[in-house]
Amino acid sequence: MGENDDSDIIEHHVEEEMEKKAARIRGLSSPLLDSLSPSEREGHSSTQSSHRLLAYSDALISIIATVMILPVAHTKVEDNEELRESVQLLLTTKIAVYLMTFLIVTVAWAAHIRLFQVIVHIDDCLALLNLACMMLITFLPYTFSLMATFPENVLGILLFCGCVMVIGVIQSVIVLYAFSRPFLLNEQIQISENLTYYKHHILKVIMRVPIMCFFASIFSFIFFQLSYVLLAIVIFLPYISQSLKWCRSKAIGQVEETPDSMLFYTYLPNEPLSKERVEAFSDGVYAIVATLLILDICEDNVPDPAVVQKQFGGSLVAALQAYGPEYLAYFGSFATVGLLWFVHHSLFLHVTKATRFMGLLNTFSLAFVGGLPLAYQLTHEFPRNSQNELEAIQISCVIVFFAGIFQLSIWVVALYNEQETLHPYVWYGGREHVFMLAKLALYPCVALGTFFLSCILSKFSTSIFHLMEITVPFAFLVLRLLVRIGVALLRFLFCPNRSDLTTIVDDEADETRVPFNAVVT
Amino acid sequence: MGENDDSDIIEHHVEEEMEKKAARIRGLSSPLLDSLSPSEREGHSSTQSSHRLLAYSDALISIIATVMILPVAHTKVEDNEELRESVQLLLTTKIAVYLMTFLIVTVAWAAHIRLFQVIVHIDDCLALLNLACMMLITFLPYTFSLMATFPENVLGILLFCGCVMVIGVIQSVIVLYAFSRPFLLNEQIQISENLTYYKHHILKVIMRVPIMCFFASIFSFIFFQLSYVLLAIVIFLPYISQSLKWCRSKAIGQVEETPDSMLFYTYLPNEPLSKERVEAFSDGVYAIVATLLILDICEDNVPDPAVVQKQFGGSLVAALQAYGPEYLAYFGSFATVGLLWFVHHSLFLHVTKATRFMGLLNTFSLAFVGGLPLAYQLTHEFPRNSQNELEAIQISCVIVFFAGIFQLSIWVVALYNEQETLHPYVWYGGREHVFMLAKLALYPCVALGTFFLSCILSKFSTSIFHLMEITVPFAFLVLRLLVRIGVALLRFLFCPNRSDLTTIVDDEADETRVPFNAVVT
Repeated sequence: MGENDDSDIIEHHVEEEMEKKAARIRGLSSPLLDSLSPSEREGHSSTQSSHRLLAYSDALISIIATVMILPVAHTKVEDNEELRESVQLLLTTKIAVYLMTFLIVTVAWAAHIRLFQVIVHIDDCLALLNLACMMLITFLPYTFSLMATFPENVLGILLFCGCVMVIGVIQSVIVLYAFSRPFLLNEQIQISENLTYYKHHILKVIMRVPIMCFFASIFSFIFFQLSYVLLAIVIFLPYISQSLKWCRSKAIGQVEETPDSMLFYTYLPNEPLSKERVEAFSDGVYAIVATLLILDICEDNVPDPAVVQKQFGGSLVAALQAYGPEYLAYFGSFATVGLLWFVHHSLFLHVTKATRFMGLLNTFSLAFVGGLPLAYQLTHEFPRNSQNELEAIQISCVIVFFAGIFQLSIWVVALYNEQETLHPYVWYGGREHVFMLAKLALYPCVALGTFFLSCILSKFSTSIFHLMEITVPFAFLVLRLLVRIGVALLRFLFCPNRSDLTTIVDDEADETRVPFNAVVT
Repeated sequence: MGENDDSDIIEHHVEEEMEKKAARIRGLSSPLLDSLSPSEREGHSSTQSSHRLLAYSDALISIIATVMILPVAHTKVEDNEELRESVQLLLTTKIAVYLMTFLIVTVAWAAHIRLFQVIVHIDDCLALLNLACMMLITFLPYTFSLMATFPENVLGILLFCGCVMVIGVIQSVIVLYAFSRPFLLNEQIQISENLTYYKHHILKVIMRVPIMCFFASIFSFIFFQLSYVLLAIVIFLPYISQSLKWCRSKAIGQVEETPDSMLFYTYLPNEPLSKERVEAFSDGVYAIVATLLILDICEDNVPDPAVVQKQFGGSLVAALQAYGPEYLAYFGSFATVGLLWFVHHSLFLHVTKATRFMGLLNTFSLAFVGGLPLAYQLTHEFPRNSQNELEAIQISCVIVFFAGIFQLSIWVVALYNEQETLHPYVWYGGREHVFMLAKLALYPCVALGTFFLSCILSKFSTSIFHLMEITVPFAFLVLRLLVRIGVALLRFLFCPNRSDLTTIVDDEADETRVPFNAVVT
């Protein structure tokens, strides 16, 4: 087998050479071909770059992660009840299901990233196995919501555990298949000597989850509460095992480390997470969430011609006016989600390496973003100036605040290790540092401000909220100017002796190069 | 202004140098940073790579393109009617709306691609303008469905035209903004001398559509049928203008060509279309379509505990059995969509350059893919062996057939210009040519076979259909083997004198290097 593989690799390189030559012959020095990375150029043989497979998987997983917000969004809040009660009812069941599903799916996604950081090339067989794996992942939310609706019924637990076990088995098959064809693996592992050690280590980590689920499904017949404990352990296993490791290292002194294996399949908070995939997954979630309301509008808010004729005397304008709040909610949530995406995009432009911990914070941020359309829809569903409306607006502010705060915390975490995770331009004292901070802080600050203003001036809460929705996009447009003015002001207040610098405020870029943090903090 | 820009560009390069140096200093020769293209490494300054903005736009547009399938999918087909009638009812309205929306949105998407092939870098301002543009594009399907539901009402036409006009204005602003900062533009345009000519040409092409819509909205007050004619012209404008150009060139001989401007904003069928974006858009559509049914399942098919207690005596299994057909439809449609994605993925691995015509064929293929979940859902909704069931199965086959055939035709079109559009390995006689053909032909052939079998053996149509669903994934797994056997057989039949070659059939890869097409055709 090994000999066969070697010949494959050699053949592979020969092919690549030939390919290049062929391209040169037919005069194809197009920028498109040149921009391809070597792994992409290998596309012609049966070995392929995994790039697009992963993009498709990310798209599927991001849809599935947000799917459980639909039952929440489509729950009709009765007008005669108080919002507080119905929200409490929602909170206890559907929102909990949504958040847990989001967490479970992102755990599966993180495992998928980890797997395909080891396996960097694919072939047809791996692509098909991955599709089978995806099919089961997309079924997870349903089994989980069955489990949540019928907590005492064995079937839900069995279905959920069954899915997780089959996913584990498929992933193990993928690992075994890839290790039997080492040219599919990450170069670092490919050239390392203890390939078998890696294989066993990875299989051990992968199989841990299905084995726990196996026990959980057995215990479900005897004492189902124990199953839930086991399943909770599965989800929080990375964090538990990591803190255990930390305790052990503290108790018995520094344990010997295996620096090579540390890169893959550890649960350290600074374990690298493919930045590209974090972006792709986030893009998927933002895109779904931004369009959630228009999906409903397109389906439900096209009036029936007969109804328009009968109830509105044929006046379409009058008929559509009834849907006014829905349009407002759509534009509001699209703009907010779009701008949060914009902040996320700006942040990740400056990130050079994503870590596990940053990925976790990103997940929390996305989970709140998923709730946004629902909250915005609520703000327009109640009569003007009612207690319900006020609370809906406050809930919206809280959600926007948390979505923004978790984005900000990604940056804070990145700053702790700025030399590895960030571009020099956003380091403390870097040229773009203050600007980036302002971008990230804008939404949390505005949301907090709106929240407190709506508490104090409860009568004008709707106007304040709409004003916020309208001004924030423009604030982002002129943010660079605002930051410059703010910085100049700060400098003027705290270092009046250096106020001569403010005269060159118009000069592009150079003035922000001096370390402001030293000034501000 | 120009001076300012020049200094910007120079500063930009200096920054990049500094960045590299800084990276070298902190010993960051990580593969991640090395794998970044130069444009991505510029991310630290206010100029950014447009990559992620486009990915997000593609995700949004792919969701929006498929949204109008939801009203089709959620139309309840009555059991007591014949499927034929209800399908005819659907065909005339909702399916037409879906197909037209898909076409309109993909036209908007193609315009977006064209725009961002000229503007290759973005800054914050462009990102925000693009988000505004996206918001209006996501609103297009709704306005169109209003227009389709109330064809004689002015409001629908006005809303639709209004959206298109605002999109046009925003795109013009984007062009003007980008041309005032030439470092944002494509290098070819950036270094060309007649920048102003390009600007005017592009603005002219962009403004054509909103101006037509402006006239359409004015005519809607006078004679609304004319508005529809104008709107139809807008959509088919590229094809009309192209055929007019062709006629002119035939009539008055070869017209002088502007080879530089030909690359951008022409409507020639071989105008390049960003391959990356075609892939991203297709991934989005496949992902949405694959999960369409699970979205419904997650929302509607979790039974109410009270109902289970009352109607099924607390037996969850019995309650879930009622949903059996839905699960089957989900797995069936996920597998079929997933495999069609797999074929698409394999095809585009071999494509080096996507053209406008290939993009159009891809759109047709995707439009059929969008109808798949609906068709699969229908197959399980009717009583066994009814006429309805038979027809639902035949409709599914037809949809799969067309989705596959259009994929195949992308390849055929690419083969006509294989030296520019394909990797040498899939050229006529290339090593992977036959294998690729088999991959692309598998679904159309199987769908055609199932269709005719279900006509002949109408009693066993369901079994035949399920058999197809189950065997096709395995057929893909062993396709390479099947192709090799088929080729060996063909060679044995037609060239018995060269049958000695078949003995080395097991030898990897080399035997397919000889030109089979010469043998087969």
